[in-house]
Amino acid sequence: MADNVFNIPKLKNFSEWYLELVRRTKLIDQRSPVKGFDVFMPYSYRIWEQIQGYMNPRMYETGHRNCYFPLVIPENLLHEEAEHFDGFVPECAWVSHGGDSKLDTKLAIRPTSETIMYYMFALWIRSYNDLPVKINQWCNIVRWETKQTRPFLRSREFLWQEGHTAHATKEDAVKEIEFALELYTNTIEKLLAIPTFPVRRPSWDRFAGASDTISMETLMPDGKVLQAGTAHDLGQNFSKPFNIQFLDENNKKQHAWQTSWGVSTRLIGALVMEHGDDKGLILPPKIAPIRIVIIPILFKGKEKPVLKKCEELKKKLGTDVEIDASDKRPGEKHYYWEMMGVPLRMEVGPRDIENKVVVIARRDTGGKETVKQADIEKRVQKLLDDIQDNLFKRAKETLDKGMHEAKTKEDVKQIIENRGGIVKVPFCEVDDSASECAELLKDYTGGGEIRGTLYPEPEKAGGKCVVCGKNAKYYVYVAKAY
Amino acid sequence: MADNVFNIPKLKNFSEWYLELVRRTKLIDQRSPVKGFDVFMPYSYRIWEQIQGYMNPRMYETGHRNCYFPLVIPENLLHEEAEHFDGFVPECAWVSHGGDSKLDTKLAIRPTSETIMYYMFALWIRSYNDLPVKINQWCNIVRWETKQTRPFLRSREFLWQEGHTAHATKEDAVKEIEFALELYTNTIEKLLAIPTFPVRRPSWDRFAGASDTISMETLMPDGKVLQAGTAHDLGQNFSKPFNIQFLDENNKKQHAWQTSWGVSTRLIGALVMEHGDDKGLILPPKIAPIRIVIIPILFKGKEKPVLKKCEELKKKLGTDVEIDASDKRPGEKHYYWEMMGVPLRMEVGPRDIENKVVVIARRDTGGKETVKQADIEKRVQKLLDDIQDNLFKRAKETLDKGMHEAKTKEDVKQIIENRGGIVKVPFCEVDDSASECAELLKDYTGGGEIRGTLYPEPEKAGGKCVVCGKNAKYYVYVAKAY
Repeated sequence: MADNVFNIPKLKNFSEWYLELVRRTKLIDQRSPVKGFDVFMPYSYRIWEQIQGYMNPRMYETGHRNCYFPLVIPENLLHEEAEHFDGFVPECAWVSHGGDSKLDTKLAIRPTSETIMYYMFALWIRSYNDLPVKINQWCNIVRWETKQTRPFLRSREFLWQEGHTAHATKEDAVKEIEFALELYTNTIEKLLAIPTFPVRRPSWDRFAGASDTISMETLMPDGKVLQAGTAHDLGQNFSKPFNIQFLDENNKKQHAWQTSWGVSTRLIGALVMEHGDDKGLILPPKIAPIRIVIIPILFKGKEKPVLKKCEELKKKLGTDVEIDASDKRPGEKHYYWEMMGVPLRMEVGPRDIENKVVVIARRDTGGKETVKQADIEKRVQKLLDDIQDNLFKRAKETLDKGMHEAKTKEDVKQIIENRGGIVKVPFCEVDDSASECAELLKDYTGGGEIRGTLYPEPEKAGGKCVVCGKNAKYYVYVAKAY
Repeated sequence: MADNVFNIPKLKNFSEWYLELVRRTKLIDQRSPVKGFDVFMPYSYRIWEQIQGYMNPRMYETGHRNCYFPLVIPENLLHEEAEHFDGFVPECAWVSHGGDSKLDTKLAIRPTSETIMYYMFALWIRSYNDLPVKINQWCNIVRWETKQTRPFLRSREFLWQEGHTAHATKEDAVKEIEFALELYTNTIEKLLAIPTFPVRRPSWDRFAGASDTISMETLMPDGKVLQAGTAHDLGQNFSKPFNIQFLDENNKKQHAWQTSWGVSTRLIGALVMEHGDDKGLILPPKIAPIRIVIIPILFKGKEKPVLKKCEELKKKLGTDVEIDASDKRPGEKHYYWEMMGVPLRMEVGPRDIENKVVVIARRDTGGKETVKQADIEKRVQKLLDDIQDNLFKRAKETLDKGMHEAKTKEDVKQIIENRGGIVKVPFCEVDDSASECAELLKDYTGGGEIRGTLYPEPEKAGGKCVVCGKNAKYYVYVAKAY
């Protein structure tokens, strides 16, 4: 099929389709000399910058301040919070030498920055007047994955944002979690056009050291869920070992209440998987590095007025417009920009100039229309808005269709194996540090994980646990996950 | 002296003044658990973001694209260019373990990214159609300094921007160097209000692996120069070992011509040193995170209309305006915001509201004036422009006063020891890989270094070399340096 530049149908061979797509569109280059350390190419880095551009003012306006902490963390500091240490040490990269000298204490390259930041928080916070502390850092993170790596989704180095806060009361910390989740909902739904589904992780699957972890789950078209962002209520779990204390208004010493929250370059992987099709990427207009591509239809001797008109249109339509005046044939250009996911494609030929029109094609539906040049700005804005809405609507349908319920483990298995998606089931217990039922269910269903209970309020379940048959406490959501 | 919050006069004890200032204003926190890895606090990080905000569109418009390369570089890759390896290996931090496993090959944390980037360039570049490649990366860098560290100026980790390009011809590479230098001149002079003085480094002091290094020198008020940015003509020195070859228009294989260029968070140190005074920072309006602080003069029972007026003024004057409505006494606020270098301070009290005026004080001159509220937007813009211009003018006077000439090494020594500054002298040779005369002069003058010849054209010298007395080739510029 000429329309399919990859010859890999998305829904038949999802994994291969994804790898080929991120390679062909030059979102990423995996051929770096160090395994798992990929090159983020300009097209994907630009998407990352747009995510930053969306989130930064929203954080700033609400009193969060960007800053930058050291890349390396001494081993003993990582040790301060025991669960955190156990959780992260197996995947740390360790610096042993500075120049020729062996270091006295090994330094971990940050797998996350709680420990190094909270060491400093303890120096900064003395009284309730110093609270809240609300900071954010955009940086690189290294986790020495031993599983198979996948571009954007699992790599040894990635980029992220980590928000870290300290508050005088538990209530303030909970409000901060709500802020973070709202920020993430807006970023993921309004900017990336991906619907989210927030769950509270079961105790055995929290962030190492957290009292509570809320995940923004998203459902990918292959039926697996992807954790698109998380916010952690750290309680006083770190403030106690790190000695982050303040004098309250009654002159009494208290430990601070803390949160941390992050999204990473994983989001770019989600964006590719969610919207792309057999022809390539489909980028929502709000995040697309190039929103409109103008293709001049050039005939010998008639190039000049056509190119002039293209420049005129570009100027009118603002930035993020690219004119492809290369030597390639129009058909080639057409396929290329389709693959790159540019939301709108315009064609301008000599006859269009005569008729004072432009032909516009939209990437999401393939629909084409002829628009009067006089109306172009208004029409283009309308089309871009429509595409953004349409992509979200499509993705929401995928999510809605992917939501199932089951009362037996056999049904769960059948759904997970056949269609994938998220299965709501009654379950015995989510507050233990480990769960035999969860392990049994994962084995039985070939990978279905308990992703958590509904957030903010878990749904009480009346029936029996799908695994052990004991009285169920809550409904939980089961899915295979990235 | 009450006016001097530090009790450290800038020009009498420059080094102590600097350290105390960056600590007190919370630009940086040096108390991190790893020596030489400082915390970039929100106030300085915001300055860094503004530098990024200034440079990014200028790079983008000229076809440069941001991207992100791996943090770690295998030892053997660093080895490819021999001089580069010798130059950087002594100060690399080395990763030896990933999780529990010892790595087969040691990985250096990037001290600069030529080698890892050019390994990828070789995969990307096949024909002249693939050229030029013009990319840029904002990232963290680690160099294991053994000398005494200083915040912003010399630390083991810092943030920077590194531009890397590949071209089909030497001429194109030279033009790219000119682009980089113009970008840096604008950034440093127009944004940071620091005059620059471009020199071509002598051969023995080039970037390791470069054919030519141009430095944007700046003169600090203590008489030492600071390299504020550099651009390197790499010739084909890297393209040969890294095998970056392309088929030219005649179907002949050629090695690419390359450049690299960078500015770092050092610029923040220069900004502090150049403009600050005994009362604290003085930030040029274009870079100041807070341009205007409004201090309400509050009397019991009359707070409301005053605070309302402050909010009204803030809204009128746009972002980057802060209202200090804290409990502190007006005098305390006054000293605090002076220390923080905010360009304009406004005071609004009940009487000002009655008279429909505002009192404005400028940080650079201390001048105060009463402005009608109706005229405020225009007057504020004028004052901000004046401050920006005035700070540059002052700094330019410092630079001009610091330029000297000498014909003997005794005179050089006397100038360097007494006043500092930049001394122009006739010198025998700048094209050797080492220079005994340069070493002798440095010893004799207590640290005066040959910074280079004038860029773009070196000035031919008629007299005798100030050190060996042989015929001089060029005038060179000698100074102590950060």
